[in-house]
Amino acid sequence: MSQKLNPVVWNKIVFDSGFWKSRQETNRTVTLPAEYNQLKVTGRIESLKLQWKPGMPHKPHHYWDSDAAKWIEASAYSLGNTPDAKLEAMVDEVIELIAASQQSDGYLNTYYSSVEPGKRWTNVHVMHELYCAGHLLEAAVAYFEAVGKRRLLDVMIRYADHIDSVFGPEPGKIRGYPGHEELELALVKLYRATNEKRFLNLAEYFVNERGKQPYFFEKETLARGDDPAKNAHREVLNRDYLAEGAYALYQSHVPVREQKTAVGHAVRAMYLYTGMTDIGIEAGDESLVEACKTLWQNVTRRRMSVTGGIGPLEGCERFTFDYDLPNETAYNETCASIGLIFWAHRMLQADLNGDYGDVIEQTLYNGVLSGVSLTGDTFFYANHLEVEPGLYTNRVNRNVRMLPRRQSWFEVSCCPPNLARLVASLGGYLYTTSDAGVQVHLYAQSKGVFSIKEVETTIRQETNYPWDGSVRIVVSPAAPTAFDFTFRIPSWSKQASIKVNGSAVSVSVVKGYATINRVWTANDTVEIDFRMLPYLVEAHPSVRFDCGKAALMRGPVVYCLEETDNGKNLWDVVLAADSKFASSYEPSLLGGVVSLTSEAKSRDLSEWTDALYRPVGSGYRKREIKAIPYYTWSNRDPGEMLVWMRLGL
Amino acid sequence: MSQKLNPVVWNKIVFDSGFWKSRQETNRTVTLPAEYNQLKVTGRIESLKLQWKPGMPHKPHHYWDSDAAKWIEASAYSLGNTPDAKLEAMVDEVIELIAASQQSDGYLNTYYSSVEPGKRWTNVHVMHELYCAGHLLEAAVAYFEAVGKRRLLDVMIRYADHIDSVFGPEPGKIRGYPGHEELELALVKLYRATNEKRFLNLAEYFVNERGKQPYFFEKETLARGDDPAKNAHREVLNRDYLAEGAYALYQSHVPVREQKTAVGHAVRAMYLYTGMTDIGIEAGDESLVEACKTLWQNVTRRRMSVTGGIGPLEGCERFTFDYDLPNETAYNETCASIGLIFWAHRMLQADLNGDYGDVIEQTLYNGVLSGVSLTGDTFFYANHLEVEPGLYTNRVNRNVRMLPRRQSWFEVSCCPPNLARLVASLGGYLYTTSDAGVQVHLYAQSKGVFSIKEVETTIRQETNYPWDGSVRIVVSPAAPTAFDFTFRIPSWSKQASIKVNGSAVSVSVVKGYATINRVWTANDTVEIDFRMLPYLVEAHPSVRFDCGKAALMRGPVVYCLEETDNGKNLWDVVLAADSKFASSYEPSLLGGVVSLTSEAKSRDLSEWTDALYRPVGSGYRKREIKAIPYYTWSNRDPGEMLVWMRLGL
Repeated sequence: MSQKLNPVVWNKIVFDSGFWKSRQETNRTVTLPAEYNQLKVTGRIESLKLQWKPGMPHKPHHYWDSDAAKWIEASAYSLGNTPDAKLEAMVDEVIELIAASQQSDGYLNTYYSSVEPGKRWTNVHVMHELYCAGHLLEAAVAYFEAVGKRRLLDVMIRYADHIDSVFGPEPGKIRGYPGHEELELALVKLYRATNEKRFLNLAEYFVNERGKQPYFFEKETLARGDDPAKNAHREVLNRDYLAEGAYALYQSHVPVREQKTAVGHAVRAMYLYTGMTDIGIEAGDESLVEACKTLWQNVTRRRMSVTGGIGPLEGCERFTFDYDLPNETAYNETCASIGLIFWAHRMLQADLNGDYGDVIEQTLYNGVLSGVSLTGDTFFYANHLEVEPGLYTNRVNRNVRMLPRRQSWFEVSCCPPNLARLVASLGGYLYTTSDAGVQVHLYAQSKGVFSIKEVETTIRQETNYPWDGSVRIVVSPAAPTAFDFTFRIPSWSKQASIKVNGSAVSVSVVKGYATINRVWTANDTVEIDFRMLPYLVEAHPSVRFDCGKAALMRGPVVYCLEETDNGKNLWDVVLAADSKFASSYEPSLLGGVVSLTSEAKSRDLSEWTDALYRPVGSGYRKREIKAIPYYTWSNRDPGEMLVWMRLGL
Repeated sequence: MSQKLNPVVWNKIVFDSGFWKSRQETNRTVTLPAEYNQLKVTGRIESLKLQWKPGMPHKPHHYWDSDAAKWIEASAYSLGNTPDAKLEAMVDEVIELIAASQQSDGYLNTYYSSVEPGKRWTNVHVMHELYCAGHLLEAAVAYFEAVGKRRLLDVMIRYADHIDSVFGPEPGKIRGYPGHEELELALVKLYRATNEKRFLNLAEYFVNERGKQPYFFEKETLARGDDPAKNAHREVLNRDYLAEGAYALYQSHVPVREQKTAVGHAVRAMYLYTGMTDIGIEAGDESLVEACKTLWQNVTRRRMSVTGGIGPLEGCERFTFDYDLPNETAYNETCASIGLIFWAHRMLQADLNGDYGDVIEQTLYNGVLSGVSLTGDTFFYANHLEVEPGLYTNRVNRNVRMLPRRQSWFEVSCCPPNLARLVASLGGYLYTTSDAGVQVHLYAQSKGVFSIKEVETTIRQETNYPWDGSVRIVVSPAAPTAFDFTFRIPSWSKQASIKVNGSAVSVSVVKGYATINRVWTANDTVEIDFRMLPYLVEAHPSVRFDCGKAALMRGPVVYCLEETDNGKNLWDVVLAADSKFASSYEPSLLGGVVSLTSEAKSRDLSEWTDALYRPVGSGYRKREIKAIPYYTWSNRDPGEMLVWMRLGL
């Protein structure tokens, strides 16, 4: 690795006004209380008391601990940003329930401690014990770092030590690894928080053991007396539908360094790759980072929607094959896009390449933010890129995750608290530092105070990003200091202009980053204008769903048409490739967005009295269209929605 | 009804050479033996012996009788066309097994007689007893008419009388109707064959009772002690997913005359509408024909693929909503298109309108013929309009019916024998007669001998239809006779030229039909040139899947692109709306077809080294495309296939 970059942690950055201030405020005042309420009413909090007995309502599910954990983690970041005694008391109460549920040997899992006592570690393949452990660990680290309380951290260190005593290559231990990856990256966080190398070692073991033959999941299934070809508990997950071979759904078909394409369950894949990159960085294992670079190319060049959505298939929430990026049936789980941001953030630390930052903002402002309503209390699990509402009322299996309206909660409700923790911790994605100086990855109105070359420095960003491509950055080290000020030039910005203290400077761009090296003194100012203009993008010709179509973008924001602005039959809207779009900031529209308008054409319905098919005609009429940011769709009247619009004529 | 038209039955018409001679020959020599073999090896023949006991293989299914019945019916038509002692002996043997399986009271059903004795008529909703009865009745009538043997007919008259004694409005009878329609139309056939009015009355009762409240299916379920909201036997069929209300899946949500849109299971719908039209004609019930005209408009103007495929959704094999006509996921069951032809054929008898004949040929040469391979031994159940093979290897539920390669058989194997009976009986779709004369509905090389105004007349069609739009028809009555010679002008034919005995005549076209009235004498000749040229059609702007696309047709034949001729990325082929197509008859291609070639464009892949998205560019290159008839696809190497091609540039 050429250069080790250290992320500036979230609590060094304050969004003091602007876009993210408002999103964090909604997250804190609406989303977190709403999610707590759902944890309550669905029995997830109560389940931590381990009082459930057969016949009682709210039988604990094997993934419930992770929902509470992610809510704690999100609350932790929020408390770090904005102290809130009431929220802190709620968190402490939940933490006490968790602490009290810990078994005498350190084991901690609601499901196995109350529903199937005695069966722990018998179905690591499917039952999410290690996944829940990972989320609880992340929560423990975050809460300790946010408010300084060790209670959950100590509990989780005991549990991590217990896991370490159960899993490993040594005789008498289970030679296994998680069915749903997550613990790997969490152990790295624990290692960083405690500096205890054994946690990093355990993470390395899990990653290196994965995919070896004979397969652990198969051995484990046989040990239970079950048939590996049929897992009665979750049959669908156990079947092997993947061309890549057995257990590809879990990224355990071959050892991780031999994996060249992103396969299987998309969230699992993202958490694995994130952990692999973390371990590669911390353990100095170049081979893991190289494996991730190969996988990165596959994900972002072959298997990612323009919104940063990944995992196109509802069935098993997974990757399929190159260029298979459906719009109407896109699954694009919110959690998978969040995981993609986690991973990109780690890749950035291993390899300063604008590609990672580009994908972070492309995913953040589109496929992630679409996951939560503007009011903060309803959520998308799947993020379609086009919607004909009739499709959903006519589905046979009405999976609520696929509905084209955001929901208050889901039976499997991983996405809502995942969103909350990303929004609350977003400050941590803006900067890294290195021996050379500071690197700016994301642009957002904010104030950061952190050390650059051991000198405390305030970096203030003044911008209306993502609605305006002008960013004024005031750099104020406590004392004059020479360092590299390195900042990302987004790939969508074709003519960025840069000034330092009012004077235009010319900088060369290396792998998507520009660098200004000088002695920085208080109130030095870097002004960047990325020239944020609307533009149309096309997809690779192999993406069959997008041939002859274009997506409209402005900066990192993907736009869409919604029926409420444009009427029905959005698929019949045709744009010229050189269409001009007018940008207009509308403060009262959808929480304040830039909308885009243009002239387009549609066929004249008056010519279609009663025919279903007719010889090709030319009956097009001019019409206006109005596009809104994709992430804001479905906040008004229900109806059609379309991202990829027809080009032509 | 303005005019009663009597179909000229299939055995009056011989395909003596040309397109249908070859299809019927393949049907007789390959399809029928292959299907018999499948009936054997899957246990369907053996099951007729009623020897099955729990623990034995090949447990009879509740629909198996219908598979054997349709094979008998298809064989009957084939024997009527071409005597074949071996085939006749095979049929007789199966008929003897059926006869021997009849219970002492006339009841006849393999499943209930061997698997669930004592449970007969307890689940008419789901268990297909009346459906199987209908197919056996059709077989019995066909075999009697084809070879003159009464054995099966007598058995089935006893069974029909038994059913008549069990169902009806009288006290003590079951006030019910079929869960899967079919018996209604079969009872009309039995009525026509026997002239016994009670069979028509029973058909009328079933149709008139359907959809009345309280719902029979609900009462029946409650009578079994089951919960109507949950039917353990076939849960999916019992749920109500349809906006139209409970039991819409079975077209029994409201009385049939109140049904305005085609809903539910598409094959059930077609068989119901066919029966309704039959009864409307035979009983002189105009209200049934009017109801069917309304439904016809909905099906053909809102819910029919350009291939005549109907029922777009895999889930419950059913209709969804107006203009929901997907291509890649199209279900378009072969049986549903066959049912559409049955229905159109009945509508034609009630109302001489070219629309019905147009739909018959559009469906026949596309969505029906695609159901069987050129070799005659493999079959499509679902008929997609575009295929990316990777989609199917990545499906979670690998329903064999959805695979993009024809299969030898299916567990539910309704389509293969349905195809066989349509192909073998196709002669019956060419002509009707009336008091005014003869009506020609389909064009095909053939010779027909039948009475027109009570004078035996030979009508010989000489044509290479569907590859050539020239049709020479020689009309030879046994004695000079004045009558209307009425023939359909297909809607695709924009400039038909017509000559009688070599002299051009001008005729007016009324509702799609031209009429020549004269005294016809032996060897009078009508020459029609329909000017069969390639043309592009577009779909209604509300068909979201087809916006910006065109389907290529020539005469009634829909064309497609296949990877084996055109390479990959067919979705990126772009045609100009005024593209010129060259037609070429290729005798050695796909059994002899006209292929179409043209110039088109595609994006230049060399410009797409590693990007997935990029600003809209203009990098298109010229290319040749070659299109083949849709029904012939998937007879060569597997690969992509596309019907709806992009228009533009």
